[in-house]
Amino acid sequence: MLVDGTPYRTVWLEEAPQTVGIIDQRKLPFAFETLELTSTEDAARAILEMYVRGAGCIGAVAAHGMYLAAEECRAAGLSGTAFDEAFAAKGKQLCETRPTAVNLEWAVKRQIVAVTEAGEAAAKVQIARELAQLVADEDAEWCRRIGQHGRSLFEGLLSGKSEKTPINVLTHCNAGWLAFVDHGSATAPIYAAHDAGIPVHVWVDETRPRNQGARLTAWELGQHGVPHTVIPDNTGGHLMQNGMVDLVITGTDRTTHTGDVANKIGTYLKALAAHDNHIPFYVALPSSTIDWETGDGIKDIPIEQRRGEEVSVMSGLLNDSEAEESEILVVSPGSPVANYAFDVTPSRLVTGLITERGICEATESAIHTLFPEK
Amino acid sequence: MLVDGTPYRTVWLEEAPQTVGIIDQRKLPFAFETLELTSTEDAARAILEMYVRGAGCIGAVAAHGMYLAAEECRAAGLSGTAFDEAFAAKGKQLCETRPTAVNLEWAVKRQIVAVTEAGEAAAKVQIARELAQLVADEDAEWCRRIGQHGRSLFEGLLSGKSEKTPINVLTHCNAGWLAFVDHGSATAPIYAAHDAGIPVHVWVDETRPRNQGARLTAWELGQHGVPHTVIPDNTGGHLMQNGMVDLVITGTDRTTHTGDVANKIGTYLKALAAHDNHIPFYVALPSSTIDWETGDGIKDIPIEQRRGEEVSVMSGLLNDSEAEESEILVVSPGSPVANYAFDVTPSRLVTGLITERGICEATESAIHTLFPEK
Repeated sequence: MLVDGTPYRTVWLEEAPQTVGIIDQRKLPFAFETLELTSTEDAARAILEMYVRGAGCIGAVAAHGMYLAAEECRAAGLSGTAFDEAFAAKGKQLCETRPTAVNLEWAVKRQIVAVTEAGEAAAKVQIARELAQLVADEDAEWCRRIGQHGRSLFEGLLSGKSEKTPINVLTHCNAGWLAFVDHGSATAPIYAAHDAGIPVHVWVDETRPRNQGARLTAWELGQHGVPHTVIPDNTGGHLMQNGMVDLVITGTDRTTHTGDVANKIGTYLKALAAHDNHIPFYVALPSSTIDWETGDGIKDIPIEQRRGEEVSVMSGLLNDSEAEESEILVVSPGSPVANYAFDVTPSRLVTGLITERGICEATESAIHTLFPEK
Repeated sequence: MLVDGTPYRTVWLEEAPQTVGIIDQRKLPFAFETLELTSTEDAARAILEMYVRGAGCIGAVAAHGMYLAAEECRAAGLSGTAFDEAFAAKGKQLCETRPTAVNLEWAVKRQIVAVTEAGEAAAKVQIARELAQLVADEDAEWCRRIGQHGRSLFEGLLSGKSEKTPINVLTHCNAGWLAFVDHGSATAPIYAAHDAGIPVHVWVDETRPRNQGARLTAWELGQHGVPHTVIPDNTGGHLMQNGMVDLVITGTDRTTHTGDVANKIGTYLKALAAHDNHIPFYVALPSSTIDWETGDGIKDIPIEQRRGEEVSVMSGLLNDSEAEESEILVVSPGSPVANYAFDVTPSRLVTGLITERGICEATESAIHTLFPEK
């Protein structure tokens, strides 16, 4: 999507040899900086220290890191089994940066299988380079399709509106292009509708405690020129009660094959408010996010508890003139703090799932009808 | 309630002549400081610049400010009609500090009526002093009774618990003793249960954007020794889904005589989650908060929009060693922000109202049965 009028992805192959470009997301929204990665080490650091975050984005950066790993194996004069063993070791090193990131392990394994099958060292490097590009292209294409399918929801809502009244969509957290390679999941239908000339306005939940909405979603919508307003997470219910929200779209970290949706803490509260006010509540996701093993999301999806400092300490700009952030204590000193990262929205509150194959109800039968091979 | 082991109210008559004591709430939770007010000017500044806040507390500070006004009129050698006119003018000056604070005008008018009826200047001063004390005592007594009635809810919940398992209560914003003279509204049943030896644990919503939960409720519970945990506003739904909340109690800024509850933005979302999980949702209020004119809360209660900086800028401690707070920008620069201060929870989601006269259902007939004179 656009940054200052220029199209960007979150990760790309630079024209310079053995060089991968990324956006340094730690600096957002107060500074936009890109970085060049030229080694497996660089890629591992970028993932570990969260220069990049978000399932799709981490997977693609890992795939690009494995291309850099292949370059290193060739530069070390390795070939055959020695190449493959060194390559797999570098893959292990990448996987250890964020052990719970499913896409990371998936991308690394895919590279190892492909590179092991190739012959010469040069061919292995070429395969790794092409596969890195393919992983990024696939991720972007899945999100683009989610956008095309989701756009139909906006078109459906247009009929009830006067020409210049925007469709008001509410989103929670950042399921934007910054979390993928391009387009995003929850944001893909928004960008697709906006780019098609449909008037759209986005209510952006700030998304405490890490403020991904106020920081990242607001930034990327602003850069792409999509009208939006940042609101405290407490606000959505009031807006829905007063006819100021036409549609809710969120992303998901894991959705069961029965339609229960694990997503950023607070999503369940918005689903309840949407249901109470007869507002459609959609979840956008590439099908790789569907958990085909788990049935009861509330009972069986473990909810990560993170450190309390994410709640009690906030980070931001002390002065407009600086790009470096400062941290302040915002909770009464000595008071204990709890930080549950996700909640589970039961399928009964979800109007539908927007996937790369189309939109379906959040029910076991509808999901399996759309993905019959599972 | 207790601060560092010493009982405090939010406002009191000092032993020194013509002196009123208050807690400087601007400094909380990072520093506890009391201030002496010795003039009407001092009292007006304390209300205007929010050294004190909260309906009950503002009313009581205004009543004390009018006592200081009476002292000033006597010191100026006024008596009779000249005294009364000067006294009323000082009352007008106090009322102008926060024009929408109903309790402020009510306390000032009550002082003017009483002082005008008294004879000599000395008698007028004595009446004003006694009435200031009475207004504070009445406020504290109403809250104490709310606490006694509300305590029965905790006793009722005890039967289903093993002896040492605490009753988990969730609250939103600060409807604590800092907002009144003592006890608070939503916190009164909590303090009453805790003081009676019932094991209680409070989930404290941080309450964005102004963080009154994380700052004030957490501070006052901590000072009084009530176990509590601060959580982001997004968290309550997850806790309720998982059996970690037994009871929700909030305060209210205005409740219609049909039982619709206007309170801090986000209250409605917690009421929805409580309803979805069959958890009792109570609202604690002195009956002075009931709006006997308004029937449809969602349609007819105007919702204040406040300045966006309350959302985009956060205040807190940069270093543990300092008591002065710093402000940081926490939203993507240039993104618009909306700041709705309250929402309305429809009566159908409210299990009951805890008033100074007892607990009743949030229905027109139950409310009028408890308050037949209205």
